[in-house]
Amino acid sequence: MTRLILAPLLIAASPAPEPPKPLPSPPEIVAAAPAADWVAISASDLLVLDLAPLNAKPRRVIIQLMPPPFSQGWVGNIRKLAAARWWDGTSINRVQDNYVVQWGDATEKKALPPGLAVIPESEYSVKSRSIRASPFNTFLDASTYTEIGSIGPSLALSQPNGINRRDQYAVFNGFDQGWPFASSLANAWPTHCYAMVGVGRDLPPNTGSGAELYAVIGHAPRHLDRNIALVGRVIEGIEHLSSLPRGTGPLGFYEKAKERVPILSVRIGSEIADLPRFEYLSTESVSFARYADARANRRDAFFIQPAGGADICNIPVPVRRAK
Amino acid sequence: MTRLILAPLLIAASPAPEPPKPLPSPPEIVAAAPAADWVAISASDLLVLDLAPLNAKPRRVIIQLMPPPFSQGWVGNIRKLAAARWWDGTSINRVQDNYVVQWGDATEKKALPPGLAVIPESEYSVKSRSIRASPFNTFLDASTYTEIGSIGPSLALSQPNGINRRDQYAVFNGFDQGWPFASSLANAWPTHCYAMVGVGRDLPPNTGSGAELYAVIGHAPRHLDRNIALVGRVIEGIEHLSSLPRGTGPLGFYEKAKERVPILSVRIGSEIADLPRFEYLSTESVSFARYADARANRRDAFFIQPAGGADICNIPVPVRRAK
Repeated sequence: MTRLILAPLLIAASPAPEPPKPLPSPPEIVAAAPAADWVAISASDLLVLDLAPLNAKPRRVIIQLMPPPFSQGWVGNIRKLAAARWWDGTSINRVQDNYVVQWGDATEKKALPPGLAVIPESEYSVKSRSIRASPFNTFLDASTYTEIGSIGPSLALSQPNGINRRDQYAVFNGFDQGWPFASSLANAWPTHCYAMVGVGRDLPPNTGSGAELYAVIGHAPRHLDRNIALVGRVIEGIEHLSSLPRGTGPLGFYEKAKERVPILSVRIGSEIADLPRFEYLSTESVSFARYADARANRRDAFFIQPAGGADICNIPVPVRRAK
Repeated sequence: MTRLILAPLLIAASPAPEPPKPLPSPPEIVAAAPAADWVAISASDLLVLDLAPLNAKPRRVIIQLMPPPFSQGWVGNIRKLAAARWWDGTSINRVQDNYVVQWGDATEKKALPPGLAVIPESEYSVKSRSIRASPFNTFLDASTYTEIGSIGPSLALSQPNGINRRDQYAVFNGFDQGWPFASSLANAWPTHCYAMVGVGRDLPPNTGSGAELYAVIGHAPRHLDRNIALVGRVIEGIEHLSSLPRGTGPLGFYEKAKERVPILSVRIGSEIADLPRFEYLSTESVSFARYADARANRRDAFFIQPAGGADICNIPVPVRRAK
């Protein structure tokens, strides 16, 4: 009891503590990252989706394809489909609110190009040991979890396990080569975050060819992880998909042919002469660790209560046009 | 070692097990819920936002206001603003992709009606003990977490702690009277899930009056929990907000006045004669527990890998028009 009474007196006798200064926001940390922390994205790893113009304005959606070890069977098929100009003249056929935008051949009768691989379900994940180690990927197990009430705002850099890194869908999670993943002890898989691009399929054991694609435009549907292949993410132009009118049919399919959004062309980025260059913030960099910590513990002037954690899909990997 | 060797032999000597039958999907569970599991939503707890028609079609957004113990100071202000017709003739001014749609007075000069409360930051959360106990809300602590690899698809009903209920932003979470919340040991607060409606504000200690509102149209921005007041959720017509063109100014504000979406009127539901009646699936019901379990462990025919868990924002509370 004595201590409870004395403490306020001691505080009153000391000089008033200065209020903590606001710390950089996530965008400020990203803007201050040195050039060496940015990694160029090869144009040959981009898929460029040109929709019919809207009000005379072009609509270009740029997708980054996923690198090894993830989903390379489907990515290979997608490269073949683009090379064959297979998507030219197809359309966006489904826009389901808080879920996905889906495109491909609405007739479901267009012949696929020869040589596409049939990929087994086992390719939805990879061995955990194929993920690169990094400071951020320090795998947490139950014994290192810290209850959020006792964490307080401390930098991830000095206390890498201090951030609440729980994952409701996995044992742990992290980033590899700029991509979010979740993992069990044995296997790792990419995660269905906003703007991720996946492969539509029929009922199992069908795994889809890659001809039917979707992009996530809502809260992360993580229940799709390990049930559908993810092959990339939209890095520019997502608004051309997310702001489309919602379909009124079951699952958000457009009910009338005229509602569909025509696709003019889909090309690999290296086929397009004037394409901007893109780069992502290395998820192995100190800048990224600081950014992720700031996403989990906002201390810029607007915030009064740092969260103490962030889910993997609330730490979007920064991607920008290269200067 | 002996048991490890014997087990496969025993299995081989038994008749081949039948493959498990697909179980009901979340929508099927909801459709089969008895009438007694649905709770009527009073028209006096609805806020009806009528936007200017688009292509001669009306655009109505229906928001359910939050019940006690949450955010009642702001909800009271919102009732007064609607009664004063304060929003009539204002507009939607901000649409930021994967974040929020925001509306109010673009001039920031319109006088507020008299008698609005000034609400302290402490009202962003409530005492945990004011949350009603329910089977779903069995609070999990670290000692009851089960690693996902060892769970397998088991019904939540028979094993309520078998679902991975981790929360990166809180110690635990649950549902109260149809609303998602997160909680520390001492306090509970509503969560920023898709379609939730909150109160825009200036820098702290400003907490906002309720005149400037936003709806979440992207991945749950849970870092806003306990930093901004949540006052409701869109229960019908979210597509009229989520499919709006994105603003091209900072934070997604529209740069030109003509881009703003006019608001014709905002009324409390009981002022509108022909409003449909709505109801939500009781989050205290067995049907809801089965639904939440199915969201966490999809076993319908499309799925090959139940997730073993779901984050609180990936278990949207079913709301429908009453028959």
